[in-house]
Parts: sequence; C-alpha cells; structure tokens
Amino acid sequence: MHFSSPCAAGKTIMPDMLAFFDSVGCAVVGASSNPSKAGCQILVNMQTAGYDRGLYPVNASSDEILGLKAYPSIDGIDGRVELVILATPAAATAEIVGQMRSRIDGQGDIRAIVCAAAGFAELQTADGIRYQKVLLDFCREKNIRLLGPNCVGVIDVKHKVDTTFIAGIAHVPGGISFVSQSGAVGAWLLMTWAASPAGGVGFNKFITVGNMADVDIIESISYAGSDPATRALGVYVEGSPESRRLVEAAAAVAKRKPVVILKVGRTEEGAKAASSHTGSLAGSDSLYDGAFRQNGILRAHTVDELSDALRAFDLLPLPAGDGIFILTQAGGPGIICVDELASTGLFKPSLVSMETKAALKSCLPAIASICHPEGHADITAAAGAEHHVEALEVVLRDRSVDAVIFITVATLFLDLAGMARGMVKLLARLKKEGIEKPVFPVILSGNWTRESRAILENAHQPTFESPERAVKALAAMRSYGLFRERSES
Amino acid sequence: MHFSSPCAAGKTIMPDMLAFFDSVGCAVVGASSNPSKAGCQILVNMQTAGYDRGLYPVNASSDEILGLKAYPSIDGIDGRVELVILATPAAATAEIVGQMRSRIDGQGDIRAIVCAAAGFAELQTADGIRYQKVLLDFCREKNIRLLGPNCVGVIDVKHKVDTTFIAGIAHVPGGISFVSQSGAVGAWLLMTWAASPAGGVGFNKFITVGNMADVDIIESISYAGSDPATRALGVYVEGSPESRRLVEAAAAVAKRKPVVILKVGRTEEGAKAASSHTGSLAGSDSLYDGAFRQNGILRAHTVDELSDALRAFDLLPLPAGDGIFILTQAGGPGIICVDELASTGLFKPSLVSMETKAALKSCLPAIASICHPEGHADITAAAGAEHHVEALEVVLRDRSVDAVIFITVATLFLDLAGMARGMVKLLARLKKEGIEKPVFPVILSGNWTRESRAILENAHQPTFESPERAVKALAAMRSYGLFRERSES
Repeated sequence: MHFSSPCAAGKTIMPDMLAFFDSVGCAVVGASSNPSKAGCQILVNMQTAGYDRGLYPVNASSDEILGLKAYPSIDGIDGRVELVILATPAAATAEIVGQMRSRIDGQGDIRAIVCAAAGFAELQTADGIRYQKVLLDFCREKNIRLLGPNCVGVIDVKHKVDTTFIAGIAHVPGGISFVSQSGAVGAWLLMTWAASPAGGVGFNKFITVGNMADVDIIESISYAGSDPATRALGVYVEGSPESRRLVEAAAAVAKRKPVVILKVGRTEEGAKAASSHTGSLAGSDSLYDGAFRQNGILRAHTVDELSDALRAFDLLPLPAGDGIFILTQAGGPGIICVDELASTGLFKPSLVSMETKAALKSCLPAIASICHPEGHADITAAAGAEHHVEALEVVLRDRSVDAVIFITVATLFLDLAGMARGMVKLLARLKKEGIEKPVFPVILSGNWTRESRAILENAHQPTFESPERAVKALAAMRSYGLFRERSES
Repeated sequence: MHFSSPCAAGKTIMPDMLAFFDSVGCAVVGASSNPSKAGCQILVNMQTAGYDRGLYPVNASSDEILGLKAYPSIDGIDGRVELVILATPAAATAEIVGQMRSRIDGQGDIRAIVCAAAGFAELQTADGIRYQKVLLDFCREKNIRLLGPNCVGVIDVKHKVDTTFIAGIAHVPGGISFVSQSGAVGAWLLMTWAASPAGGVGFNKFITVGNMADVDIIESISYAGSDPATRALGVYVEGSPESRRLVEAAAAVAKRKPVVILKVGRTEEGAKAASSHTGSLAGSDSLYDGAFRQNGILRAHTVDELSDALRAFDLLPLPAGDGIFILTQAGGPGIICVDELASTGLFKPSLVSMETKAALKSCLPAIASICHPEGHADITAAAGAEHHVEALEVVLRDRSVDAVIFITVATLFLDLAGMARGMVKLLARLKKEGIEKPVFPVILSGNWTRESRAILENAHQPTFESPERAVKALAAMRSYGLFRERSES
C-alpha cells in the first residue's frame, strides 16, 4: 500500500497527513441536499474547490444529491475512495465503521477520515468517549489517518480539497497555511479573508484538529511547516498536554519560515476557559512567551495581527534593516504611524541622502513637508496619483530605506485607482532592477478605497486597514528578520 | 446684531460658534461644477445634508452650478448670507475680503466664515501668513467667526449643514460629536462610519479646526461639549500652545459627558512629526496622560478605539458595575475575549445565581458549557437563533450581570438575521421592564454577517468588529463610570 512505509522492524508506521490532501475519491457520509446541513455544504465546498477525483455522496434515502449519484452505503461505491468525510450523528459510528470495514477488507482503499460530526469525546459522556474509541481503534487497525472528531476539516487550495462546511470561502492560491485548534477561529479568518477588497486572500493549507483523537496540533504544525508550498505558517493554540513538543515543532518550522501563533489562555481566566473548551491545559503563559521569543516564533494577540503578519510574510520581502520611511498624504494618520513605529523600539527613521531629499522636493507639491522629521514626508492633500508614485520610487531607491509605510486618505482630488495601478507598475519595474523592499500601503477609508486596494491585492501587494496594523505587521517581519540574522551568524 | 452680546464695558465679545451651524443663507465662494473640485463637493454636501436656508454658489464665470443660480460676486447675492465658505486660492483673499466688506457694510449679514482653502499660514511663507492676517483682521473687525484656514469644515446633522468636501459621508443623526485637529483623521472616521453595516453611524457635530486662526480646538471642545445634542465627545489632538487650557476644557466636559481623546505625539518622534504638521508643540505626553486620567478623560490610541468607545457611549447605558458575562457560540473567540477582559483588570466574571444556571441549562443545547469558568457560557455551534436570544434574556435578568459580550460566528445552521431581530425585540421588551444593561454583540465574520449587524445597528444597538474591540469599548465605559462614581461620592 503506497500510503504506509514498512519500518526496519517490519511493522508499518502510520502514513503522514498527505492522505487528507492527495486522495483519489472522496465519500461524504451523511450527504444531504438540505443547504442548512453540513453534509450539503461539504459537497458544495468540495465542488467549488474543484475536487475532480471522484466525489460520492452517501445517503440511504436519496439516489442523487447536488447532481451527483448518491450511494446507500460506503461499501457500495464503485470507484476508488481514499478519503471519507463523516457528517453523520455520532450514534451511527458503529454502523459506518462496519461499512468501512467491509469496504476496506475488499478494496483496501480508505487512507484518511475527516470526522466533522460532533458528539464524541468532547462531550465527556460515556457514549461519546465510546464512539470515538470505536472510530479510532478501526483507524489504528487499518492504518487510516483520522482528523477530529468534532473538527471543521481541511482545505488545500493546490490539491483542490475542501472538506469543511464553512460557507463563503474564497479558494485563492497562496503561501499561507493555518492550523487551528478552534474551528470558529479558522472560519472567522477565512470568511474575513473572503470579504477582503480583492475578494479573497491567497492561502495553501487549512487544518482544524478538533478532538485530536489521532492527528493532533503538533503533527499538523510539522506537516504544514514542511510543505514547500507553505511560505508562512499561522497557528491558533488553546493548549496541549505536550506543550514542550508543541514549541519544538513550531521552533523547527521557524528555523526555515515564519510561524505566527495566536496562543490564548494568556490570563488565568483565559486558561480556565481554554481548558474547559478543549480539555487541554493552557500551561503557564510566560513559559510559552519565553520559548516563543527564544525560537523566533512570533506571537499575535488578535486575529487581525495574525492575519496581517501572515499576509505580509507571504507576499513581501523581509526588510533588510531597520530604516523605515513613512510616506503620507495625510498628516494626522502619518503622525499616528510615527507614534506606533517609535513604540515598537525596532526601527529608526531612514536618513535619506541629500539627493533623495532634492528629488522629493522636485517631484512633490511645493507645500509638501519633506523629512521634518527624518524618515517622514507629508506629501499633503494636494498630492495627485503621480506624486504618490514618483515619491514612492524616489524613496525606494534610497539605500537607507529598508521598508516604506504608505498612507493615503481618499480625497476628491486623488485618482486612487490610477495611483494603485501606478504603484503596481513601479513595484514590478523596481523588482526587475533588483530593488525589492516591503511596502505597506494603508489606503483609508471605507468603501471608497476598495477598488484601489483590490488593484494592489490582485497584484499580490497586501494592503492594510490602518497605520497601526501596518506597523504591527512590519514589526513582526523585522523581529523575524533579526531572529534569522542571529541564527545565521 | 443678534450674534454678538455687549459686555459690561460696552465692548462686544466674539459670538459663539453657533454661527457656523444655524446660519440663514450660505455662499460658497469658488463654487464649481467640476466634481474633482472642493467647490463642487461642498455644494453637493450642503445639498445632501439638506441645507434649505439658501445656498448661493459664487463663481465669476458661471450663471448656474448644480442647478443653483450662481453669482459673480458675494456682494451681489439677493438673499441673506450668514455663512460664507471659501474654496478659492489663498491669493484671492484680498479681493474676496473686499467683496465681503462691501456686502457687510451694506447688509451686515455675514456671521461666520469657513475657509476650506489652503495656502495660508500653514505654509510658513510670508504670503501665506499675510493672506491669513488679512482674513483674520477683517473677521475681528466685523465680529465674524472664522474656521480655518486650511480646514475641512463643519458638519451638523441636526442643523443640516455640511461645509466639508469629504465625499461619501452618511448624514445620520446621533449623539456623537467629533472635534479634530486633522482633516484627514476626521475624513477617515466619517468615511469608515459610512461603510458600516447599516450604512452610517449617527453623529451630531463634526468640527475640524485647521490653522486655528480664530476658532481653536479648545473653544471647539467647549462648544461641542456644551451642546445638549452631544452625548459623547471625541477629539483628535496633535497639540496646543495652551495644553493646560485644553485639558481644562475637556475636563469640564467630562464632568457631564464622556470625552474620548486620541492625542498623538505620545513618542518623541511622533511629537516632532506633530509639531511639523500643525506647528503646535505636542507637550510632554506623560503630563497629558496623568491629566486625562485624573479628570476622567478617556484616551484612545487608535481611530478604531476612539470610534468604538464613542458609539458605545452614545447608544448604550453605562454598566452599573464590574460583573461581566460572556455569551459565546464560538469557543475560540470566547477565550480570546476572556483573555482580553482579564487583561484590563477592570472586571470580574458575573457570579450568576443557581436559578440562572438552571435556566440556561434548560434553554440551551445539551452540549453547552455553562459557567465553566464563571461568567462565561459557550452555547456551542449547535445553538440556533432562539438559543442565542433566550440565553441573552436569562443572563440579562440576573442581578450579578452588569454587561454582556455576545459572540457569534456565522454558521450554516444559524439564522443570523432572525437572531438579530429577536435580540432587538428582547432588548426593547427588557427596557420597558426597566432592565437596561449594555450588550456588546460581536458577529463574526466578513460579509455574511452584515445583514444581521445592520438589523441591530438600525435599532441603535452598536455591533463590534472583534472580541477585543468590544472589550476596549466596554473598558472605556467602565472607566468613565468609575470616574463618575468617584466624583459623585
């Protein structure tokens, strides 16, 4: 069987998590045509993700669901079925395990099960614990990987798999992977991304672990971290009985690529709530904090911080140093940005050359305030689209500049879409010349700016909601850059 | 003249700022039909605000602008003109002052001038300073109030005035007033509000002060603060040469109603940028911080914090104490909320009665986790709209509960709009019974939740973007409540 490898002693070891993503044939047990049922949305999600390797609804009382031939039982499916998604009541576990046993004894094809259904050990009832044991024992015996129970499932944009029942996800390919101990936090993030100006943020793999009967958060971190298509890894953690191994797994990934963790239970009260939610001890928060810092693991405190940092890491080059330039058309928001940058203690204002100052003076409106203070230009509301783009070019060409925060408030006089198109062209041109520095555009405010933000985001240039959110993402990048510099020296 | 009062010594004192809001007749000098010009958008804004007391475009080269009769000169306008908006180049100042002088000598009607044009003293050029002096001297001589130059103007939703050139504002009546030393921050806030789920956040007065030649930020704070229609006052400050008077003005307002200040220049670098922007010294930040705290003035560090706190103050009752209940359908976001609440140090979990616990148990799905830990119920993704509403009622009826944070993630199974309608009905019913406690709904995520949020917001129940933003708004309310308790004891 290609999904397990014999070890030295002749015993097989459990196959890795690839089985959830590259499977040929997927059965959805508990499939439904009722759109308020998970068993319906899972089929819809598999279809919209583009899964084309055989999708088989299993439902004893229908012949057809969403245009697909439905089967009364999993052992009656004609094609190959390597992945099974369970959206059935927990009480049906023994019966379904029976069907799967009869199938696997005949065809030996099932490699992975995603159990989306709830009602298992998380309830801490005798029945729930027993159902979970029946399912897990079967998986162990047959060398099948199990995700859940009580999980939201997995998504893999590259392999065109979406076993979740989250409505309204945008399957845009990108380099972010996200591992979550909470289905709700995962859904929150993905639905927020789908509502972004460009209608979706690119990502790679999404894994929610639920009860962690077999696959746990530690293995998921290692797996997603080792995936070459993952350029930045995000993790939401409530806790683990093996907190040391969890940190080690994340630290191993952080040596190669950025890892951003939202670890909750940082207060005593939060730890109690986390423990009650997943039954896992949150552990002492200061231990996590220290271990994260030591190992270059970045810690986010909110979902926004997590999301902004991941998007920056996925799409922008790391700043090569601590010289930052703020290019703003809006005085007040620019000062808010200066305050935030200074508060991080990680940066210094770029000391640009006399030539750069002269070039800014010659390309900007006469009333622009250039380098008062250093590393800051207020190009004023009189600045048009060309002023923005030309000033950005001048600044990016200066050697002292390692990153630019670019702040604009929509005004009547400014062609935001033209500005965005100009920026996209400029950044592509500079890249050809070998000038690649991270730019953090903050285009305020509201719906007036969505078109310009969409132009930038469709060209893989992330945009940010506010100066302070841009600064936090930049600070995460700089922290990681410093960690890499320390590790490499 | 009804707009100035004789003082004891027989001299007249400058009239108060009412002249900007209740004026009869408004001339827009530099009016234009070109939509990319301020002089066009100002007319549009006055029209959409509903100004119906006489609107007169002044432009030497047009007979009609936006369907309104245009006049070649301000002294040729037939009707009464109490308010003049200047959207002309600064170099035209002497000429326009001449026209105004000839008008006022004949008709004596001009009470207030909003100078939206830039190019005055903010440039620190001899010309700019001279233009500003010509304008100000005329105003002083004729007892006319002047806002700006270089300001974004004023809005008064009640008096149907909008002299700004910000596009896309929603003129929704409400109790928030906002005074800003930055036009861009003001525009950012108003445009963000216009993009809110219900298409607008209610407000009362909006004042940007620009160069502060006459009306300054201190008078604006006192004026807006004394306005009975203002229930909560927001301020964006860069600095003032009279920082003590500024704090005293805000403190006087804070005795009667909440004042939330976003004071920038809190770092040395930010102070330098602020000083360069408005020429005003930011002053020592720790002095501001201490003075704010002592006087019950709330300090926001971001525009989001400012906005959330103002909306909560305007529409929700102050929590009577520190007992908080978190009602969540989503485990992870609920834990994020517990952490955030605990971090403020301002709250304790509500210790609800045995009866309340029993009532929650009987109205919620069997798998709900009730009061583990105390003050927290995870009603689980199995909860439907009725579960949400019934649980909210049970919790609000408990005496130990002073405020509720209510967190829901959109799921397939949940009728969010039905839930929102149920909440609106419930809150109205409880209000009739005299039960009024602040509720902070956080309905995640993305566009899926806009309808339900709009239902709540249209019923004057603010909603919040994330658990941590709800907690910050609640913390601002509790801080202010404690200040009021201390002052009254």
